[in-house]
Amino acid sequence: MTRKPSVRERLAQAAFDLFDERGYEQATIEDIAEGAGLSRATFFRHYRSKEDVIFPDHDLLLRQIGDRLRSSNHDTALVAVSDAVRLVLLHYIDEGDVARRRYALTSTVPALRGREIISVARYQRLFREFIARWMANRGQSAPLRAELMAAAVVSAHNHVLRRWLRGESLDPVQEVNEAMRQVIALFAPPASGPDTADTTVVAFRTGQSLEDLLPALQQVLGGQSPAVASQDVRPGTGN
Amino acid sequence: MTRKPSVRERLAQAAFDLFDERGYEQATIEDIAEGAGLSRATFFRHYRSKEDVIFPDHDLLLRQIGDRLRSSNHDTALVAVSDAVRLVLLHYIDEGDVARRRYALTSTVPALRGREIISVARYQRLFREFIARWMANRGQSAPLRAELMAAAVVSAHNHVLRRWLRGESLDPVQEVNEAMRQVIALFAPPASGPDTADTTVVAFRTGQSLEDLLPALQQVLGGQSPAVASQDVRPGTGN
Repeated sequence: MTRKPSVRERLAQAAFDLFDERGYEQATIEDIAEGAGLSRATFFRHYRSKEDVIFPDHDLLLRQIGDRLRSSNHDTALVAVSDAVRLVLLHYIDEGDVARRRYALTSTVPALRGREIISVARYQRLFREFIARWMANRGQSAPLRAELMAAAVVSAHNHVLRRWLRGESLDPVQEVNEAMRQVIALFAPPASGPDTADTTVVAFRTGQSLEDLLPALQQVLGGQSPAVASQDVRPGTGN
Repeated sequence: MTRKPSVRERLAQAAFDLFDERGYEQATIEDIAEGAGLSRATFFRHYRSKEDVIFPDHDLLLRQIGDRLRSSNHDTALVAVSDAVRLVLLHYIDEGDVARRRYALTSTVPALRGREIISVARYQRLFREFIARWMANRGQSAPLRAELMAAAVVSAHNHVLRRWLRGESLDPVQEVNEAMRQVIALFAPPASGPDTADTTVVAFRTGQSLEDLLPALQQVLGGQSPAVASQDVRPGTGN
């Protein structure tokens, strides 16, 4: 069952066909309208320019994301943003083939690539401002933290989106869930467990193995078993 | 002591003066050349377009950063990148007033703002590719991590740069050092100290205070003092 394409979609389809056939620069708005069996005036009722046909309606997507953020009941700004950003991925997935043709086109036409980068910056700014407002009373490092969180969410989202556009990802929704989980973990307070109200973390330099130490430590701590984490820490594999 | 301005600098100076006077769109290349007491031909020996006069030579800066990265002897890709990005900040600081006038201009002319955003994306891509190559053998999550690191370095740098351009920062070099420290900490393996080869971290749930526990713990550990960290962990303030 395929629904009848809208006028907007017919114009977009004709445009992409022409760009493939003649190249982006060569195809005119007249050609696009003609290709869709429509008039130039109809084209301009739906799009402002040739570039506009190619890109999704980012104004609309930004408004939808803004609405989602405003009505969010998530615990942290970062979780709210990492949830809202999925609307973009879902929109692209819904576009399907059009999204992939756009990606191929923006990869080869610098002006289009530029416009895409500017769109990404608008999402990042929306997120940064949302997080910064949320954390307004969190001290002087909050603006930098808001900046870093917004950048992380957007770049993780785009990483997954690009993989899907290139045909490298079969399950982008699962991938974006995992990517956002990693972003949230990045900003989580270090070494906190599910309930850290009564947790004490002590780090000692010692040559003894953890296994040798545990019984004696447990005794000192009144028979408590390690409840949150116990591990040898080796130098990280680095960054 | 002020050195004699170069031809490039004279043209830039004249351009900014004219943009202030007449607005960016209204000032022509002829006007700029005339304002600097030079010919149109001389203008085109130094710049390709009116936009070019405004922006720093990003191609040159990108090459310098690439050189710095290639000759880096830092331990991790993230540290190398967080070091190299400072070249951009230092360049802007060196420009001084010109950088601040450009910032005012790009804030009001969308086409210039767009070009600036595209430049930022080029730095981020250079960093992402450098980090991704460095971590090529680090498993399937490495590309996302490279993406996140590059985004963090660039956004932290731009946060400090923007503060300085707005006159909100008196010591941008110290601020960028602190911002990069925060970025590096973000990606550090949790709870690792300066030398963690022989460190054991144990987390217990306990109602006893750290102060009460320490002497007994030290005894168990053969008289070692806490060498890396010792702190009560309370639920984080969240994100």
